[in-house]
Amino acid sequence: MKTRAVLILILFIASFVVESKAQQLNIMPWPSEIKMAEGQFVINKNLRISISGNPDKRLQPNLVRFIQQLSKRTTIPFDRDTIITNTEASMIIEVNRQGVVHLGEDESYSLKVENDKIILTAETDLGAMHGLQTLLQLLDRNRKSFFFPCIEINDKPRFAWRGLMIDACRHFIPLEVIKHNIDGMAMVKLNVFHWHLSEDQGFRVESKVFPTLHQLGSNGEFYTQVQIKEVIAYANERGIRVMPEFDIPGHASAWMVGHPELASADGTYKIEKFFGVFDPTIDPTKKETYTFFAKFFKEMSQLFNDEYMHIGGDENNGVQWNENPRIQAFMKKNGIKNNHELQAYFNGNLLKILEKNGKKMIGWDEIFQPTLPKTIVIHSWRGRESMEEAARKGYRSILSSGYYIDLFKNCSEYYLNDPLPDDSKLTAEEQSRILGGEATMWAELVTGESVDSRIWPRTAAIAERLWSPASVKDVDDMYRRLDVINLQLEETGLQHIKNREMMMRRLCNGYNIEPLRVLADAVEPLEGYRRHGSQRYTTEFPLSRVADVALSDAPDFVRFRLRYNDYIKTKNKVSYTKMMDLLEKWSGNQASFNSLAYSNAALREVLPLSDNLKELALITRKLLEQLDSGTVMEEAESDALKIQLEKLKFPVAEMELPLTSLTLEIINQLKNGNKME
Amino acid sequence: MKTRAVLILILFIASFVVESKAQQLNIMPWPSEIKMAEGQFVINKNLRISISGNPDKRLQPNLVRFIQQLSKRTTIPFDRDTIITNTEASMIIEVNRQGVVHLGEDESYSLKVENDKIILTAETDLGAMHGLQTLLQLLDRNRKSFFFPCIEINDKPRFAWRGLMIDACRHFIPLEVIKHNIDGMAMVKLNVFHWHLSEDQGFRVESKVFPTLHQLGSNGEFYTQVQIKEVIAYANERGIRVMPEFDIPGHASAWMVGHPELASADGTYKIEKFFGVFDPTIDPTKKETYTFFAKFFKEMSQLFNDEYMHIGGDENNGVQWNENPRIQAFMKKNGIKNNHELQAYFNGNLLKILEKNGKKMIGWDEIFQPTLPKTIVIHSWRGRESMEEAARKGYRSILSSGYYIDLFKNCSEYYLNDPLPDDSKLTAEEQSRILGGEATMWAELVTGESVDSRIWPRTAAIAERLWSPASVKDVDDMYRRLDVINLQLEETGLQHIKNREMMMRRLCNGYNIEPLRVLADAVEPLEGYRRHGSQRYTTEFPLSRVADVALSDAPDFVRFRLRYNDYIKTKNKVSYTKMMDLLEKWSGNQASFNSLAYSNAALREVLPLSDNLKELALITRKLLEQLDSGTVMEEAESDALKIQLEKLKFPVAEMELPLTSLTLEIINQLKNGNKME
Repeated sequence: MKTRAVLILILFIASFVVESKAQQLNIMPWPSEIKMAEGQFVINKNLRISISGNPDKRLQPNLVRFIQQLSKRTTIPFDRDTIITNTEASMIIEVNRQGVVHLGEDESYSLKVENDKIILTAETDLGAMHGLQTLLQLLDRNRKSFFFPCIEINDKPRFAWRGLMIDACRHFIPLEVIKHNIDGMAMVKLNVFHWHLSEDQGFRVESKVFPTLHQLGSNGEFYTQVQIKEVIAYANERGIRVMPEFDIPGHASAWMVGHPELASADGTYKIEKFFGVFDPTIDPTKKETYTFFAKFFKEMSQLFNDEYMHIGGDENNGVQWNENPRIQAFMKKNGIKNNHELQAYFNGNLLKILEKNGKKMIGWDEIFQPTLPKTIVIHSWRGRESMEEAARKGYRSILSSGYYIDLFKNCSEYYLNDPLPDDSKLTAEEQSRILGGEATMWAELVTGESVDSRIWPRTAAIAERLWSPASVKDVDDMYRRLDVINLQLEETGLQHIKNREMMMRRLCNGYNIEPLRVLADAVEPLEGYRRHGSQRYTTEFPLSRVADVALSDAPDFVRFRLRYNDYIKTKNKVSYTKMMDLLEKWSGNQASFNSLAYSNAALREVLPLSDNLKELALITRKLLEQLDSGTVMEEAESDALKIQLEKLKFPVAEMELPLTSLTLEIINQLKNGNKME
Repeated sequence: MKTRAVLILILFIASFVVESKAQQLNIMPWPSEIKMAEGQFVINKNLRISISGNPDKRLQPNLVRFIQQLSKRTTIPFDRDTIITNTEASMIIEVNRQGVVHLGEDESYSLKVENDKIILTAETDLGAMHGLQTLLQLLDRNRKSFFFPCIEINDKPRFAWRGLMIDACRHFIPLEVIKHNIDGMAMVKLNVFHWHLSEDQGFRVESKVFPTLHQLGSNGEFYTQVQIKEVIAYANERGIRVMPEFDIPGHASAWMVGHPELASADGTYKIEKFFGVFDPTIDPTKKETYTFFAKFFKEMSQLFNDEYMHIGGDENNGVQWNENPRIQAFMKKNGIKNNHELQAYFNGNLLKILEKNGKKMIGWDEIFQPTLPKTIVIHSWRGRESMEEAARKGYRSILSSGYYIDLFKNCSEYYLNDPLPDDSKLTAEEQSRILGGEATMWAELVTGESVDSRIWPRTAAIAERLWSPASVKDVDDMYRRLDVINLQLEETGLQHIKNREMMMRRLCNGYNIEPLRVLADAVEPLEGYRRHGSQRYTTEFPLSRVADVALSDAPDFVRFRLRYNDYIKTKNKVSYTKMMDLLEKWSGNQASFNSLAYSNAALREVLPLSDNLKELALITRKLLEQLDSGTVMEEAESDALKIQLEKLKFPVAEMELPLTSLTLEIINQLKNGNKME
């Protein structure tokens, strides 16, 4: 009995140790099953890796990249002639069969790290590749060596469709940026690259059948077919589908520069440089329209090998249709009651063309029309209702509503946006029609220079939502791990940190950027579409201002928030001190920022924000002291402070201070008699 | 008389103002003639630019890039539809004729900035493009606006051949890195990209005629012909020649993996992974060798459009020739006395092949043989003597000896290495045969990740040597301007700063990199080939250690050196204080570096260096105090200090402290009774 009690105690302690250790891991997305063990697999230059079974040949280059990355992090040179071996190895990769990069492929894997052995098993090479990414994320170091902790992981995705959409039209996104993003996607186990390729502001694919599409429909910035094939091969090697989008019938100005006959109104067209919803719309009533698209989609279906073709279909404002008597007559004659039905007619015709070319149709939720067959996929962007309605009516769908990363929202919001939340009213069968989701990077306010910093690291949180069990949703832990993944993402070439730093250096014109960095790490760009409210943006804006280096999750504010949450829960003095340090950093920065910015035409607009940050930091400091001493705040004082906060919340140069809302929380806490949880 | 004196005084002051202003400009390379004036051309969004005359069409995209860069720096959105105009413009570009990207083309330009007008004139668009780069370097700002200072510049290159060679063989250099480097070259007016494409460690060009060359001669990393054409077009658009090098008959192991019949010894061959000089050498005695090269150079002559083809020719050790009885018999029979003559025979045959394909031959100085015609160009690497000898014998030549940027030497050394120094013994005619020079980036110790930080900003100093008048050679001013150009270079995509920062973040594993940065900015990698002395490097080394982020001109040490030079000249107290600040930063860093590195297997090797830096900083601090107080040092004390310095000079982890030699200077200064200039 005594022995048993000790044993239970030991087991209890052991499980606690294992548990707390697992909590310190930095895996993202978090695996479905994870068991920590004692011990380490130490890495040295004698590492040998064998592959057995029947993987696709893509596993080999992925393994080589794994080794290179491991080598760079550990600084260990591995012997390239012997590290991958057919004989005895310390790391064994077993793959049952060749994976195919298409929707629904098996991507599961199991990973077991022991003191002297690593075993990675998977049904397909795609699963094995995910396992290699997990293993890299497990890499740790101490004073003597680098190692993987002993562990057992069984992992598989929750959703089959886990995507990132990049709008390469409103601003062109260079090929190398696309490739780096595909590498980033592979690191966090995303598997669909959705390439938004036509828009009012540009047609970005070389068409050999209709060359004026890209020649006149772009400013000379487009992808050649050779480059597109290169991207598809690049993505396929990384287990990622490439799905193109040609957005019709609306958002189509650029098509009409070279092909005005496609439009629903006579005239000449030009590439749009403003943003929004515009009139130019494909004419769905002319026979020639379908002759054109039959040829066009035949060409593009051969170029892009994914089974899905995204036809856009969003935000058709109907103006050109309403104003064209010929189109109105056509509708009347054919019993088409409204523009939505007319678009359904258009889509029905497109569907036939796509099917003839072996493609499945997907489009934004406006394409949903019960006359269309159940083979189409609805891409929900206006709200999750459209996705659920489609599911209830028997259609499969994916979610992007809530994943609009162009909207400068906090990561936590995207993270908690579950395609199938606990309280979903859908039946099991209906739920099975929700395939997953996509982060969408619309490009009004990004260039090739800044786009990475708008996509990463935030998309890693969305990747976790789509891969990991629904129960994984601790926001603070997500932020903690995101900070680590953030640095790993840049190792493959992503410029989300690098270019941001360069942009700050450019703004500071050779002076020490530290005061700008302190400010930029504490402020956030205006959320939603509010930046567009301050001036009418066009494609010509350089997007090189301070607002363009401000991040939607101000890194120092995130740190402050995590410390505050911890302090409120535990009254932890370390967290209190760390908060005070940050507040001092912020208030102390005003003088140095002033001397940096005063004579710099590019920085002067931000001076009031720096002043506000100082004032806010001083207020918050006082409030925290009151909180710590258990003071209760009088109504009058809190009212006065709230008025002061309102002033400090006011946007400056398209940015604001996220601390204001937390400071308000503290005031309320103080007002409520400072009762902590 | 009185009026005249005042006028003279005013003129004197004015010229002084103008002079001191010109000294604050950050142009690099420095122009041949420059006249400052009062006033500014203020930049706003109404800027209009016109092009007149008959430029090549490449001027247009260069002007677009100029506008984009201007827009990004100034944060001003320009109207893309109207900024380039045919009518009235505030900035006028006049070009007489289309430039051709070949040796000797006119690259001169004149630039005049007035308060309300900018006039850029040039014989060719190539000159105009240089003028645009100069104009960008003139950009300045104050609290209200961005502006160009009023100025008049007449500029033309001193040498016609101003190159950068990148060895893409010992480590493969990805396409995007090549392109960024071409952009960097254009910024500092270099005009030859010399692409080293075959080596013992890799054959890096797709050959359709002999596909096993790249298939078996590389690890899968090579440039496709499509990519090569892309690079040539990219470079041509930027006024830069692309000259390929296929290094034969030595340095040729990689050719023989797929084509062992080319070798001078029977057997099988493999891609070399060590560095140095190896035996595999092309057999110059077989007819089949020339059949092969006739086909090979026909293919490559069509692929590469430059008039020059570099055939390497260096470091043939002759072992395979000496040991092959058939080759020895051939030499005897044909009266070939030694290997040098045999190589000349080989080159003579190659020359016929190249000439048949419309190419001129260039090779490293070993190819020099008076039996070869005067059309060949000698590329001097073993010393300037070979270049001068060639010039005396009527051959044209270029210099790379002294421009080996892989050797981790200080920038000042490269900068002062003049192809035609003041004391040159060559006649004017002989001097005219010295075409210029090339910085050479050999790739034993660089990867695609680090190569930019080895090339830039240092190559800008070599670019100045090759472009600017010989009289421009103030080292301190070069370093001052280099610091500015350094930041501008990264705007186009070069990763010399960005990747270095990433590598430091990777080494620090998520911890604040500041202590590593302080250390890394104060240390230098071992000079020359000394890093190879510490271990036998292969192509497998990840090159991700601290030594790989250390720079050959430790930035903080350069700042210290400039302050010291100023202090010695002027006893300037500001410089004294700045030096003391740096010394305090260095000595104070030891504790924080220790806590960063102690548990980090990748950083621990550097702990002793950090300790040494602290000790050295404390010593130097004391010495500076003595210097400032006019103390004279006794022999015994200086001897003791020198012994201590010897210890601190000792390399740690392939790095050393450049401050040691300056500290020694201070000791000598103190010993000599502290007599300043």
